[in-house]
Amino acid sequence: MSKQSRRQFLFSAGKTAAVTGIATMTGGVAMAAAPAQKVFVHHVYFWLNNPDSQEDQAKLIAGLQKLAKSAKTIQQHHIGVPSTTNRDVIDRSYQVSWLLFFKNKAEQDIYQTDPAHLKFIEECSSVWKKVIVYDSEDI
Amino acid sequence: MSKQSRRQFLFSAGKTAAVTGIATMTGGVAMAAAPAQKVFVHHVYFWLNNPDSQEDQAKLIAGLQKLAKSAKTIQQHHIGVPSTTNRDVIDRSYQVSWLLFFKNKAEQDIYQTDPAHLKFIEECSSVWKKVIVYDSEDI
Repeated sequence: MSKQSRRQFLFSAGKTAAVTGIATMTGGVAMAAAPAQKVFVHHVYFWLNNPDSQEDQAKLIAGLQKLAKSAKTIQQHHIGVPSTTNRDVIDRSYQVSWLLFFKNKAEQDIYQTDPAHLKFIEECSSVWKKVIVYDSEDI
Repeated sequence: MSKQSRRQFLFSAGKTAAVTGIATMTGGVAMAAAPAQKVFVHHVYFWLNNPDSQEDQAKLIAGLQKLAKSAKTIQQHHIGVPSTTNRDVIDRSYQVSWLLFFKNKAEQDIYQTDPAHLKFIEECSSVWKKVIVYDSEDI
């Protein structure tokens, strides 16, 4: 089914819900139907002081999971680890990926000083030696 | 949940709008409710040969937009440009961000040799001098 016809289908299916572009459901978890809404993409890569420490990685991930639940303006989050893909252009040297969608820059700015974010930094920053952040805004 | 069963679900759910965990609406555009489905996150950053060339940036973006419509396994895409956020940890030196969600690594692998992807590289690679790719899989 093409993206267009899927949208048309959804429009028909959701008629009484009057929801165009309704999210699809997967195991009770919502997933946005394409095309996605324009968002502010905040992507952080963490390099640990002890890259091989499972304990430190677990601590960081637990901190991020807590942060995801507490920070007010996060629209969507993804906590990841490097895939096994391996080509020259791929950077696999980081240990944890933290991808956030915000509605816009203003909501990302709020996140930066959200008490939950500051608490996360206080509790977890000892485990990482480097972060790189890429902030991009959908065109 | 397969695409087929998801469609069936949507058809049923749409009838009564009895959708728990339904996406929230913002300006008529659907937004996924957290937590999101686990995905394979493929994030590419492009540095242009001529970083200030609006023409080259437009050519790359047009190529990505075409690719987003043609590649078979892309679940969701975001084409972005650096935000105005500016801190020490932020890398703002790239010109275009290309963020893709795939269902899993296998579908990302298919994308790498998708004719639409190869065509995009053939048509647009002359404008960039560097790419960095971060592939991560949700925990």
